[in-house]
Amino acid sequence: MAKPLGFEKPLGMRDILPESLAKQRHLEHLLGQCISRWGYEEISTPSLEYYDTVGAASATLTDRMFRLLDKQGHTVVLRPDMTTPIARVVSSLYKDIPVPIRLFYQANVFRAQEKEAGRNAEFFQTGIELIGDASDDADAEAIALAVFCLRAAGVETFRIAVGHVDFVDGLLEDAIEKESDRNQFRQFLYERDFVGFRQLLSTLDIDSEAKDRLGALLRLRGGKGKIAEAYELTSNEKARRAVDTIASLWEALEGYGVTDDLLLDFNLIINLNYYTGVVFEGYAADLGSPLLGGGRYDHLLAQFGRPASATGFAIKMDRLLQVTPALASQPISRVLLCYTADCRKQALAEARLLREDGLVVVTRLVSGEAEVATIQSNGYSKVICMTEQGE
Amino acid sequence: MAKPLGFEKPLGMRDILPESLAKQRHLEHLLGQCISRWGYEEISTPSLEYYDTVGAASATLTDRMFRLLDKQGHTVVLRPDMTTPIARVVSSLYKDIPVPIRLFYQANVFRAQEKEAGRNAEFFQTGIELIGDASDDADAEAIALAVFCLRAAGVETFRIAVGHVDFVDGLLEDAIEKESDRNQFRQFLYERDFVGFRQLLSTLDIDSEAKDRLGALLRLRGGKGKIAEAYELTSNEKARRAVDTIASLWEALEGYGVTDDLLLDFNLIINLNYYTGVVFEGYAADLGSPLLGGGRYDHLLAQFGRPASATGFAIKMDRLLQVTPALASQPISRVLLCYTADCRKQALAEARLLREDGLVVVTRLVSGEAEVATIQSNGYSKVICMTEQGE
Repeated sequence: MAKPLGFEKPLGMRDILPESLAKQRHLEHLLGQCISRWGYEEISTPSLEYYDTVGAASATLTDRMFRLLDKQGHTVVLRPDMTTPIARVVSSLYKDIPVPIRLFYQANVFRAQEKEAGRNAEFFQTGIELIGDASDDADAEAIALAVFCLRAAGVETFRIAVGHVDFVDGLLEDAIEKESDRNQFRQFLYERDFVGFRQLLSTLDIDSEAKDRLGALLRLRGGKGKIAEAYELTSNEKARRAVDTIASLWEALEGYGVTDDLLLDFNLIINLNYYTGVVFEGYAADLGSPLLGGGRYDHLLAQFGRPASATGFAIKMDRLLQVTPALASQPISRVLLCYTADCRKQALAEARLLREDGLVVVTRLVSGEAEVATIQSNGYSKVICMTEQGE
Repeated sequence: MAKPLGFEKPLGMRDILPESLAKQRHLEHLLGQCISRWGYEEISTPSLEYYDTVGAASATLTDRMFRLLDKQGHTVVLRPDMTTPIARVVSSLYKDIPVPIRLFYQANVFRAQEKEAGRNAEFFQTGIELIGDASDDADAEAIALAVFCLRAAGVETFRIAVGHVDFVDGLLEDAIEKESDRNQFRQFLYERDFVGFRQLLSTLDIDSEAKDRLGALLRLRGGKGKIAEAYELTSNEKARRAVDTIASLWEALEGYGVTDDLLLDFNLIINLNYYTGVVFEGYAADLGSPLLGGGRYDHLLAQFGRPASATGFAIKMDRLLQVTPALASQPISRVLLCYTADCRKQALAEARLLREDGLVVVTRLVSGEAEVATIQSNGYSKVICMTEQGE
């Protein structure tokens, strides 16, 4: 016999075994049901897209995309996200459908892995896109739906942080002249590196009042009261408009009854360039990385020739799996039905009846009762034996 | 503004819009439920595999695989089927789990498209693998489960053709000396080209009795009675063993109560090299191409170093979608709830209650009742208006 084939998989690729997959499917069902009730319709797009269309417009950095060469020499990408393909659909197949458009997805997306680091190159997301509604109420809908999704999935303790890109930007523009300096501050916030932020601040040659304001930015995280604090902190027009938006958003979110699950975070940055307004990120207790992220991205659709405002979020299913309760073990009876050849008809007819009653039935031809004793029957709630001598 | 990005997708790639996708998801749910009751557990494997492992062992011809080059210069494939990755898992992660092993999948698979021909490069399959059970009863289980799947999906008129690779092979080996001639006959059967088969037969220099036998092979399609006919047609040992297997299989299938949906087809060839025993293929009325295909493949697992018998089938979801009834339109009430800013809290609270009752509710902030009149409300079963003046 020839040497067996290897078992290797491309870096970061993995198999999902039945126990994990059953839980993932269950969560997808719960999330899909919740999202559908808010009027979102599920859509599917190809696994593979051209780099020059979806790749070029994606929020994912090019060097993190899973890029490949097809036989014609085109650069293709395994889709880095679902938001960009959906923007493509809304601008082409959906071009005559009036906004607002509500779509959702439950799909795998891809990231290139450069070295063995235990990171997944292919992972699953459930997400929504609300396209063509620029109101603060649309932002509120996305955030409230994220809360209801986490509740539906059974996450016990979570918090969604809410911010606005213009608040940080306005504050920085007011205090710091050089764009490169401002970008360095934004980078620190993006990396949640407050120590680095403060160090940079201390070395910067700006007046002390501006320094105090930027230092105070780091403390602008909390409940509704932070709205007034944020307003007081700056007279910058852009930043104040952002605060007004947050205030109006909060009011809508009170309508949804979700403000207890929220945290205002005026220094939140979750992507360096992509978002254009309200942003949010969901955290669960005991999990370092965010469960979900989203926000307003009003510039993407125009790249496909149909300018439209948009907001949405994506839940990372792998992380959600870690913070949701295990499935009830074996909710359904599993029966092992062993039969000898002479009892075949009777046994298979019995299996059919039990399955019609909703039971899981595995059938197995045996030579006689002696063989039954050798069969591993763990995992079954019942073993039925149909041999010549009867049950 | 820059020139908009294109909408092009790689050849054969497509978007699946909500109406089709909802039906596909519904069918996947029905099939998954049916298959689970037979003791199969769902598994997921990566979209991308190395050509040298999964690609090399796949039943799909290399030039039909979607091959790509990764950044390290490895040839990778978008998985051409799920059977081969599952064989990889059974031989590695599952190596200590005793057979029989029952697994199923609901997944996308890929085929390269060379030119624009309206064929899908990415399509969905639901399938099962029963590994490590060499009995005729295992073949019967796969066929019976295929019947129950089509019934569960609501296919009204269908037939599953059942054959055995050794019957054709035995008959040909007996009558024709040259392997290349035999392969030509097999190719004609594979392509269902009976005219070509008869023409080749008429030109061949073999005795007339052998010619009659091969001609009779083409008529060996029908009910249980064909078993005796097949047995009478040949004294070739291999072919007669195949008939014995079919006879035993038929008995088991009577136990499952599915023989009315079957057609014995002793000249069935559904892949030129891959299958090793019983094979079957499902057809629906009014659909030219098969809905599903499967059979015994006892040589695959050994290639991964864990020799084991195996049988299974895959249903092509795109074709199943064509022959199953449309989803009941709008089974759930869709409500459009319009509200002015001053009624926001009341409206969003109302939306929440309606969703908890299982309704689909889309909310929309409006400036006043006049705006409501301008909104397209087709697709909604009810429009609720909450403005300052009340509902």
